[in-house]
Amino acid sequence: MTLPAPLTGVVPPVCTPLTPEGEVDVPSLLGLVDHLVTGGVDALFVLGSSSEAAHLTDSQRRLVVRTVVAHVAGRLPVLAGAIDMTTPRVLDHVAYVVEAGADAVVVTAPFYTRTHPAEIARHYRLVAGRSPVPVIAYDIPVSVHTKLSAELVLELAADGTLAGLKDSSGDLAGFRAVVTGARARAGITGFSALTGSELVVDSALALGADGAVPGLANVDPEGYVRLDRLCRAGDWDAARAEQERLCALYGMTGVGDRARMGASSSGLGAFKAALYLRGVIACPATAQPQVPLSEGEVERVGKHLAAAGLL
Amino acid sequence: MTLPAPLTGVVPPVCTPLTPEGEVDVPSLLGLVDHLVTGGVDALFVLGSSSEAAHLTDSQRRLVVRTVVAHVAGRLPVLAGAIDMTTPRVLDHVAYVVEAGADAVVVTAPFYTRTHPAEIARHYRLVAGRSPVPVIAYDIPVSVHTKLSAELVLELAADGTLAGLKDSSGDLAGFRAVVTGARARAGITGFSALTGSELVVDSALALGADGAVPGLANVDPEGYVRLDRLCRAGDWDAARAEQERLCALYGMTGVGDRARMGASSSGLGAFKAALYLRGVIACPATAQPQVPLSEGEVERVGKHLAAAGLL
Amino acid sequence: MTLPAPLTGVVPPVCTPLTPEGEVDVPSLLGLVDHLVTGGVDALFVLGSSSEAAHLTDSQRRLVVRTVVAHVAGRLPVLAGAIDMTTPRVLDHVAYVVEAGADAVVVTAPFYTRTHPAEIARHYRLVAGRSPVPVIAYDIPVSVHTKLSAELVLELAADGTLAGLKDSSGDLAGFRAVVTGARARAGITGFSALTGSELVVDSALALGADGAVPGLANVDPEGYVRLDRLCRAGDWDAARAEQERLCALYGMTGVGDRARMGASSSGLGAFKAALYLRGVIACPATAQPQVPLSEGEVERVGKHLAAAGLL
Amino acid sequence: MTLPAPLTGVVPPVCTPLTPEGEVDVPSLLGLVDHLVTGGVDALFVLGSSSEAAHLTDSQRRLVVRTVVAHVAGRLPVLAGAIDMTTPRVLDHVAYVVEAGADAVVVTAPFYTRTHPAEIARHYRLVAGRSPVPVIAYDIPVSVHTKLSAELVLELAADGTLAGLKDSSGDLAGFRAVVTGARARAGITGFSALTGSELVVDSALALGADGAVPGLANVDPEGYVRLDRLCRAGDWDAARAEQERLCALYGMTGVGDRARMGASSSGLGAFKAALYLRGVIACPATAQPQVPLSEGEVERVGKHLAAAGLL
Repeated sequence: MTLPAPLTGVVPPVCTPLTPEGEVDVPSLLGLVDHLVTGGVDALFVLGSSSEAAHLTDSQRRLVVRTVVAHVAGRLPVLAGAIDMTTPRVLDHVAYVVEAGADAVVVTAPFYTRTHPAEIARHYRLVAGRSPVPVIAYDIPVSVHTKLSAELVLELAADGTLAGLKDSSGDLAGFRAVVTGARARAGITGFSALTGSELVVDSALALGADGAVPGLANVDPEGYVRLDRLCRAGDWDAARAEQERLCALYGMTGVGDRARMGASSSGLGAFKAALYLRGVIACPATAQPQVPLSEGEVERVGKHLAAAGLL
Repeated sequence: MTLPAPLTGVVPPVCTPLTPEGEVDVPSLLGLVDHLVTGGVDALFVLGSSSEAAHLTDSQRRLVVRTVVAHVAGRLPVLAGAIDMTTPRVLDHVAYVVEAGADAVVVTAPFYTRTHPAEIARHYRLVAGRSPVPVIAYDIPVSVHTKLSAELVLELAADGTLAGLKDSSGDLAGFRAVVTGARARAGITGFSALTGSELVVDSALALGADGAVPGLANVDPEGYVRLDRLCRAGDWDAARAEQERLCALYGMTGVGDRARMGASSSGLGAFKAALYLRGVIACPATAQPQVPLSEGEVERVGKHLAAAGLL
Repeated sequence: MTLPAPLTGVVPPVCTPLTPEGEVDVPSLLGLVDHLVTGGVDALFVLGSSSEAAHLTDSQRRLVVRTVVAHVAGRLPVLAGAIDMTTPRVLDHVAYVVEAGADAVVVTAPFYTRTHPAEIARHYRLVAGRSPVPVIAYDIPVSVHTKLSAELVLELAADGTLAGLKDSSGDLAGFRAVVTGARARAGITGFSALTGSELVVDSALALGADGAVPGLANVDPEGYVRLDRLCRAGDWDAARAEQERLCALYGMTGVGDRARMGASSSGLGAFKAALYLRGVIACPATAQPQVPLSEGEVERVGKHLAAAGLL
Repeated sequence: MTLPAPLTGVVPPVCTPLTPEGEVDVPSLLGLVDHLVTGGVDALFVLGSSSEAAHLTDSQRRLVVRTVVAHVAGRLPVLAGAIDMTTPRVLDHVAYVVEAGADAVVVTAPFYTRTHPAEIARHYRLVAGRSPVPVIAYDIPVSVHTKLSAELVLELAADGTLAGLKDSSGDLAGFRAVVTGARARAGITGFSALTGSELVVDSALALGADGAVPGLANVDPEGYVRLDRLCRAGDWDAARAEQERLCALYGMTGVGDRARMGASSSGLGAFKAALYLRGVIACPATAQPQVPLSEGEVERVGKHLAAAGLL
C-alpha cells in the first residue's frame, strides 16, 4: 500500500518474539500483530530497535517482515527498519524488506564509522535514490552516537529525500524545530514527524507531531491509541492523565538489576515479559547476548501491569 | 593454517580496493596483498575498520576473504573481522569467513545496542563457543562506544575464550595492564596482545606487546616491519627514528578538509590515495557514503609520500 | 524575603552587562533589572550560566548580587547561583550571596572532579545543612557533565534538602518524572520544578512544571510572561503560537560563526547584542575568553528582533 | 627562582593533607614536602587535581602555596595550579599564587562554559599576558571535557605563550606529536613536555618527554625518581621493571567500592591512606563531598604498599 502522507497516529515498533532457542516465534509474532491491530494502532514498524533488529540475523529479519506484511495484508502500512552501518549495507536491507512488501524503510545515520553531516546527507540521498518506497530518518543518538540536526532533516525533507522522521533522541526542542520547520518551509508536504518517546507523547502531539512510535505500545496499544485520540481532540487534561498512567507503566523497563545487565536487556526484557504475562507471546526470551530477567524481576513487571490495570 | 600462539609482528589491516562503481577491485586487492607480503609482514587482517568492513556488503566481505585466503595460500595467517552489532549477526559472519579459510576471527563488543560488561563477556563466550578458529577481541571505542577493560580481557583470556586482543583504544596504560596481566596470570598462554596504533608501536612493543596492526602499514609495510625488527633487537634509538618517520607519514590522514568530510573519509581516503599514487591499486575510491578527497588533497598525500621517501 | 513555596512563573537568569574593559556595568545591570521587572517576571536568578557566572570573579559576583538585591528591594525574590566545583568552594559562594541578601541559592552537581551519585547527594546535603536559605538544584549536564536523576532529586526533595530544581538538561521525560514524583511522593511539599529551556516552556508547563528560567527572557520578558499566563489559563493554542514566536527569536543564538567561536560566545553574545540593540544595556561585551560577535552577526541579531516585533 | 627551561624530571602533584575537620593540615603538608624532597624529586606541583584543588577554598589554596614555597625556600621550583573556569577567575588565582612565590602557573582549558579552540587559545594568551611567571598548559579532558590538540599547544609554544604542557589526557600519540613538534618547530626552545600518567612514564620518556607529574609519586617518590634516572641512562629493561612495580602499586587507586564512591574518592583516598599508613601525614581525610574509604579498603591499600616493599 502507499504510505499515507503524512503518516499519523500510533505506530508501534513491533517486538520480535523469540523461541527459547533464539528463533523467531512466528505464531507469537502473528499474535502480537493481532494484539496491536485490535488495539487500534495506525501502522506497524518492524525491525526497529525495540524489535531487536540489531540482534536479528538477515534471514530472521526477512522472515519477520514477510510474516508481518503477509498477515497484515494491507490493513495497515508496514514500515521496516534497514538498520546497518553504512550505505551499501543499508541498501541490501532495503532491497529485501521492499521485496517482502514493506511500505517504507526506516534508516539511521551511519554508525561504527566516524561520520560527518555531509556524509549523513549523502547517505540518505543515496538510499532514497535507490529505494522504491519512502525513506524515514531514524534519529537515535543513543545507538548511533550522532544527532541529526533539525536543519539537516529539513533540508532532506525539502528535496524529497525524506518522507518523515522518527525522533528517538529525547531532544524535544530539536524535534519541535523539525515540526515547525516542516510546516513553514516551502517544498515540504506530507512530511511525517514522529516521536520515538514513550513518555512525552502528549507534549509531542501538542506541539504538532504527526504521531508516535512508542515501544511500550507493544504492551498497551489501547493506552497509546487513547492518548493519541485525546490529544487530537484537544482534551489535554485527560491526555495528561493517560500519559502519566503510561509513564508509570514504563517504570517496568527499570526492573532489571543494572549490576547484572544493560538498559536494553532490562527494557526489552520487560516488554517481552509483559507480553508473556498478558498472554500475547509464548516466551519472553530476548536475543543474545542480552541477559534474561530473573524470576523476581519478571514478578515486578507483573506488578507494573497490575497497577496499570493490564493484568 | 593454525594461528601462531602468540601471533606476533606486523599484521596490516588490509585495505579493500574498490572500483569507481564501488565493487571490490580483485586485481588491486591481489596486488595489495603481494605488496604487503613482499614487504615482510607477519600476517594479514582483512575486514577490519581500515578495510572499510563497515561499508562492505556481506557478499563483498565474502569475496574479500576468499580472494585473500586463496592468494596467500597458507604463506601467512589470515585474520578476518566479523564486525556486526550483536552475537547472532556476528556468528553469521564467523561462519562464512571461516568457511572461506580465515585462520582467526576478530570481534568487537556489541554496538548499536546499549550493552554491559556482563553482556560483552557473554557475547565473546557465545562467539568463541561456536567459532572453529581462535577469537581475537577488537577494542575500538571510537566505533563501538564502549571500552573493554583489562580485567574483562584477562578473564576471557584465562578461560580460553580469547586468543588475543587488537587494542585500538589509544589507551596505552590499559593495554599495558593486559600485557603484564597476560604474562602474570595463571592459565594464560599464547595470548597475543596487539596494538592497533600507528603512532606508538615502539612504545607498545617496548612494554611487551606481541605485535601491531597499523592501518598505515598498507602504505609502508617495509617501514613497520623495520620498526618491529628494531624493537625486537632492542635498538630503541633507531626504532624511535623509524617510528617518527612513520608518524610524519601518518600526517597524510589529516589532508581531508574536515568541513567537508569526516575522519574516516580523510584517513582511509589518504591510505587509498597513497596506494594509488604508489601504483599498488588502480583506483583510490572509498566506499559510500564517504566523501572523496579533492585533487589538491590527493596532491598533499603525495607530498607526505615524497617526504617519507616513498615516491 | 521568604522564597514562595513553590516558586512559580518566569524567573529570568539575569545577564551580567559588562563594560568594554570587562567590569560589571552597574547602570546597565539596573536598567536590565527594571526591564525585567517591568516585563512582569516573577523572580530573578542572578549568577547563573546565562549570567556568565563562570566568567565573573568573586568580587564581580558579590557586586552583582548586592546590586540586584538592593535594587529589587524585596519586590521579587532573588535567587543566586553558587556555581563552583565542590562543596567547600560552593559554601564560600553561599556565604556571600546570602549575606548580600539572596533569597535562595542555586547549586549544580560537583564538576571538574570525577563524581558519583552518592557524592552528589552528599554535596547537596552538606550545602543545605549550612545554607540559611533554600537550595535549588541546577541540572545542567552540558556544563557539569553529569545528569541528576529524577530519583536522586526526589530523594533530596523528600528529606528537605532541595526546595526546587532548575532543569537545563533538555530531557523533558526526566523532568516529568520529577514533576509527577514531587506531586505523588509523601513528604514533598512546596517543591518548585522549573524548566531551564527556552523552547519547550509550554510543554513543561502543560505537564505540570511550576515555572521557567529562560535565558531568552532577558530579551523578551513580556513574551515569556505572556506564554506563562496563557499556559496557566489553559489556552494551549495561543500558548503554542507565542512559544513558536519565541522559538524563532531564539534563532538569534545561532548567529555566531561556529568556525570562529563556541556556543556560549554565540548564544550569550546574541542575548547581549539584543539587549544593546533594544537600548537596555550600554555595551554588548561578553566576558573573556569569549569571542565577540562581528558587526554582521550583530545585524543578524537585529533581524531576529525585528521579525519578532521587538525593534 | 626561575623555572628551568625546560623543566625536567619528576614533579609530583603534591597531595593536600587535611584535618578531620577539612582544614589544611600544615604540619602534615610540611612532612609530605620533606618526604618528596628527600625522595629526590625535581620540582613540586601544588594545587593540581591530585592536590584536590577543585575542593580547596581560595584561602586554603593560598595557605598551601605559601606554606610550600616558604618551606622549600628555593631548593626546588614550585609550580602552582590556577584551576578555575575561565580567564577572569584564573587570573585571580594567578595573582595570589604568584604573590605567594610560585615559579610557574599551571592552567587548564576553560570548563563549565561551552568552549572552542579559538577561545582556548585566547584564554592562554590572555593569562600569559598577565602572568609574571611562565604558564604551563594542563591537558586534562577527564575534568574539563575538551582535549588540547597538539597543533594548538605547538602554536602557543611557538609564540611564547606556553612554557610547557602537563598531559593528563592518556593519549600518548597526541603527546608524542607535541614532543616531536616542539623539537622540530622553529621558535620553540625550552618547552617542557610532561606526562601526567603514572603508568607509562617509561614510554613517555622513551619518546622524548622532559618529565612526569605522577600523582602516585606522593606515595613513592623514590620509585619515580629511580624510574626517571633509569630512563635517562637508557637502561630500558630495568626501567620497565620499575615501571611495572609502580603500575602494580597504582592498583591501590581501585580499592574503593565504585557502588559507593567515584574515581576521585577512591584514587585520592588511596593516595592519602597510603601516606597515612607510611607515617607521612596525620590523617587520611579527603575533602567533601568525597566519600571516605572504609577500614577494609584502607587495609587493601596497605597490602599494595606491602607488596611494593613500602611498608
